[in-house]
Amino acid sequence: MDIHIAPVDLKKAYRLINHGPTVLVSARHEGVVNVMAAAWACALDFSPPKLTVVIDKNTRTRALVEKSGSFVIQIPTVAQALLTHTVGTHSLSEEPDKLEKSGVQLFTMENSDLPLVAGCSAWLACKLIPEPHNQATYDLFIGEVTAAWADTRVYKNGHWDFDNADPCWRSLHYIAGGQFYAIGESIHV
Amino acid sequence: MDIHIAPVDLKKAYRLINHGPTVLVSARHEGVVNVMAAAWACALDFSPPKLTVVIDKNTRTRALVEKSGSFVIQIPTVAQALLTHTVGTHSLSEEPDKLEKSGVQLFTMENSDLPLVAGCSAWLACKLIPEPHNQATYDLFIGEVTAAWADTRVYKNGHWDFDNADPCWRSLHYIAGGQFYAIGESIHV
Repeated sequence: MDIHIAPVDLKKAYRLINHGPTVLVSARHEGVVNVMAAAWACALDFSPPKLTVVIDKNTRTRALVEKSGSFVIQIPTVAQALLTHTVGTHSLSEEPDKLEKSGVQLFTMENSDLPLVAGCSAWLACKLIPEPHNQATYDLFIGEVTAAWADTRVYKNGHWDFDNADPCWRSLHYIAGGQFYAIGESIHV
Repeated sequence: MDIHIAPVDLKKAYRLINHGPTVLVSARHEGVVNVMAAAWACALDFSPPKLTVVIDKNTRTRALVEKSGSFVIQIPTVAQALLTHTVGTHSLSEEPDKLEKSGVQLFTMENSDLPLVAGCSAWLACKLIPEPHNQATYDLFIGEVTAAWADTRVYKNGHWDFDNADPCWRSLHYIAGGQFYAIGESIHV
């Protein structure tokens, strides 16, 4: 494992996505791996940590999630804006070399075959909680976070450190038409 | 209506929350009005626009949403960080003067009694789509956006204009313990 990647206490895993970043969703089933972008991912519970993510019926990733029962939510960085937009606008079904062309490099954690995208700032391994009505009606998927990790260059001691990290580590917040906002300055009340 | 507030095309209403801001949830039922903060709100669909929001069983707002069948999601600004944290950490049940103490000023749109919080950057009027299983099991509520408005000083021509607006208009992205991030700079790919 990259020396900069450290486990995140599951009780604080919600903090990784609490600020509403655009995420990458990855999954693997029977040798097929895909990665897509999702602006519509959100924390759902603290303990055990759960989250929601909207995965359209047209995506190749959806079948991988449904069949494997697991997926990864990871937080891409400003340095990965083009990668994020590319995996969000190209389909593996039409472009079998989508991941290579997008510059995605994958790695795994010990004792797991979940595909993690290198260079992200944090990763949440999720077990699908099947909710057929939500999935069919709203494309809404619920996952329980079973493990989480973050890069210590931007997340340390249970807190994001965007203020002190290089700006290339900031999270992305998608709007539309290839436009993102980076997360900005910290405000304490 | 405030001269700065303009309707937002429903087809583009998702853009108001696509970057994952912390929101204020407001609702009214039989003369009782409440406002709470929610970091766990997320777009769910484009057309008709839908969104999800997690509303804990302990909140006074939840009963108002369930009984009235409607609520408002609004986007507070950096200038409202303290207001947002205050309404998110105090309960109307224990403090009947919560809204006054928090500095909340309400207004309504024509032909509607939905309570809107003044000073926010955008408002999404929502009709509850009852999903009893989601509400009971996950505290997860789904709303269809029936109308939306934004302040033209920060949202114009279908786009956020955080880059040119006064920084006090930036959206808030909550983490924990009174710490928010403001949205930052625009990135185009």
